[in-house]
Amino acid sequence: MSVSPAVVIGAGLVGASVGCALSKAGHRVHLEDRNASHAQVAAGIGAGTTAPADPDEVVLVVVAVPPAALAGVIIDALTRFGQATVTDVGSVKAGVLNALWDSGGDVTRYVGSHPMAGSQFSGPLTARADLFTDRTWVITPHRKSSASATSTVGDLVAVCGAHAVIMDVDVHDSAVARVSHLPHLMSVLMAGHLNEVPTDQLQLAGQGLRDVTRIAGSDPGLWEQILGANSAAVLPELRAVQRQLDTLIAAIESDGTTGARSHLERGVAGTRRIPGKHGAAPVQYRQLVVEIPDAPGSLSRLFADVAEAGVNVEDLSIQHDPDRQIGYLALAVAPDQAEVLITRMATAGWAIGDADPSGDRPS
Amino acid sequence: MSVSPAVVIGAGLVGASVGCALSKAGHRVHLEDRNASHAQVAAGIGAGTTAPADPDEVVLVVVAVPPAALAGVIIDALTRFGQATVTDVGSVKAGVLNALWDSGGDVTRYVGSHPMAGSQFSGPLTARADLFTDRTWVITPHRKSSASATSTVGDLVAVCGAHAVIMDVDVHDSAVARVSHLPHLMSVLMAGHLNEVPTDQLQLAGQGLRDVTRIAGSDPGLWEQILGANSAAVLPELRAVQRQLDTLIAAIESDGTTGARSHLERGVAGTRRIPGKHGAAPVQYRQLVVEIPDAPGSLSRLFADVAEAGVNVEDLSIQHDPDRQIGYLALAVAPDQAEVLITRMATAGWAIGDADPSGDRPS
Repeated sequence: MSVSPAVVIGAGLVGASVGCALSKAGHRVHLEDRNASHAQVAAGIGAGTTAPADPDEVVLVVVAVPPAALAGVIIDALTRFGQATVTDVGSVKAGVLNALWDSGGDVTRYVGSHPMAGSQFSGPLTARADLFTDRTWVITPHRKSSASATSTVGDLVAVCGAHAVIMDVDVHDSAVARVSHLPHLMSVLMAGHLNEVPTDQLQLAGQGLRDVTRIAGSDPGLWEQILGANSAAVLPELRAVQRQLDTLIAAIESDGTTGARSHLERGVAGTRRIPGKHGAAPVQYRQLVVEIPDAPGSLSRLFADVAEAGVNVEDLSIQHDPDRQIGYLALAVAPDQAEVLITRMATAGWAIGDADPSGDRPS
Repeated sequence: MSVSPAVVIGAGLVGASVGCALSKAGHRVHLEDRNASHAQVAAGIGAGTTAPADPDEVVLVVVAVPPAALAGVIIDALTRFGQATVTDVGSVKAGVLNALWDSGGDVTRYVGSHPMAGSQFSGPLTARADLFTDRTWVITPHRKSSASATSTVGDLVAVCGAHAVIMDVDVHDSAVARVSHLPHLMSVLMAGHLNEVPTDQLQLAGQGLRDVTRIAGSDPGLWEQILGANSAAVLPELRAVQRQLDTLIAAIESDGTTGARSHLERGVAGTRRIPGKHGAAPVQYRQLVVEIPDAPGSLSRLFADVAEAGVNVEDLSIQHDPDRQIGYLALAVAPDQAEVLITRMATAGWAIGDADPSGDRPS
């Protein structure tokens, strides 16, 4: 993989983690940061060296600075490292690319990228070589990118253990507006409204409120930069939600429930479209049912046997068949655990089967 | 505590958990459920007995049925159990109370309540005697409630190990509209919008989106009932967020960033108002700083010593003092762990102190 010697500019969490991943794979990494102590910390945890690189030797430059500084640092890097492929890890791509085109620099050596990884921490001390393992890392070539530059960024992604996804710059910016920037603003609107709620009423807050508002606690300075860079893509998404909110309010005003129902069902459908963690396909649980015998204590024995099977039960409920005067325990389990549970329960004497034998399920 | 013999009507997660908590404390509990197998399961896990109660002996009836069925079941319970205090565990209180007043029944024996507890599961098999331990449980007496009925419901809350909070019915309904129903609808709007996002773009989804949309996956049938029961309190909250969304869109349209900044900061302030879990006060971390010596390898040694102190570091960052050419490691730790860290680090030779010694902090 032709990715070194490499220069990482910006030794925060992401930059230092790139340095650690490259160094761990045996590549030489030179670290730069406007704040010298950040580069020193990153070097101290194995992200590379603070010794300057020979500009003519550098193969790859990874720019990992805050959004507002990206374009200037990339333009400078294209000039300083005349042979190097330059990429960045910023979360918005179009504005940076526009600035580069206007700069008159050698944009053929620039290919943007965006690793979908991070943590609640910032700074080099929390960097990890495995931060990108199995994560999606978007690569956004543009019409003047050279094939070799795109290939070099692909090598970087591979060395870091991430999955490369090639995307058009504008498609990328739309996608992050939808799956990252809009959710952030919805969280911000909800959290902001809490300023209107009397303190004693906030005692009733539960996990749902905490989940919805968690990301609203993030650094406003960083998010101001992100939203500023991506306002063109964020606005149509905000307006679409604005229209939905207007119809939801009108529906509740007019009849109280029926109108809200379609929004609630649309929300459930939306949550099911989110892929599993690390880009895996959404998990479809297999639905099983166990017949509950009409005998004293049979339900507690049934529950004990399910627990003893050691299978992770994702959901369960009791169902009743009024025609047959019989009860069922319905269980949802991961497809790869279903056979284990079926075998164990059948061996223990229970009548167990699929909830809907005619439905699609893994064989 | 005069809470038994008790009748629990509705042997779902909450009803069966109430039965378990009362039974565990030595109280006699009679379980009823329209679905006989639910009551049997609850009895099987120790929530009480399915044998019928002597109506004249019953001291307390806890109604734990779905929102739309609440009023009818409560009215029926007041009639069937002529001496008993009747409470319910529904999440909206005003509509039920209005229906009771119109019913002409003996409302002096009814006092509503609402335990702030639950789980992602439903049904009696997932019931737990400790479901309410250290949780907030709101009690909502009305103007005709007898003092003894309110006292009996307070005893129920105490036996279940929860913290009682007395609230006016309408204040309660406003509070849950703000901290539960509005967040649910914001999550639903965000999740609903995902139906407009192409599948390949959803690959970029991260933890933030998952957190914001998690509760939107809940049962639409239940939420339709909840919103229907509380639409009068939910609507003004939705309209307030609608106004904020309108101003946010206008701000981004007009200048791209500055307008959004005030919303972002308002969101951060809102998240800080949410109490800690189980009603504890929000945690204020103590901010410490360690001076980073200008010597090779000092930062990795510093990091190792912090790790070795065994203190849970909530956040950390590197700070730089350009005037003194010196760096600092800033650490946020729980107040009760700060002294341990200070002692350990000072013993190891580091210069450590509070980030802002003049600021408020626990002594």
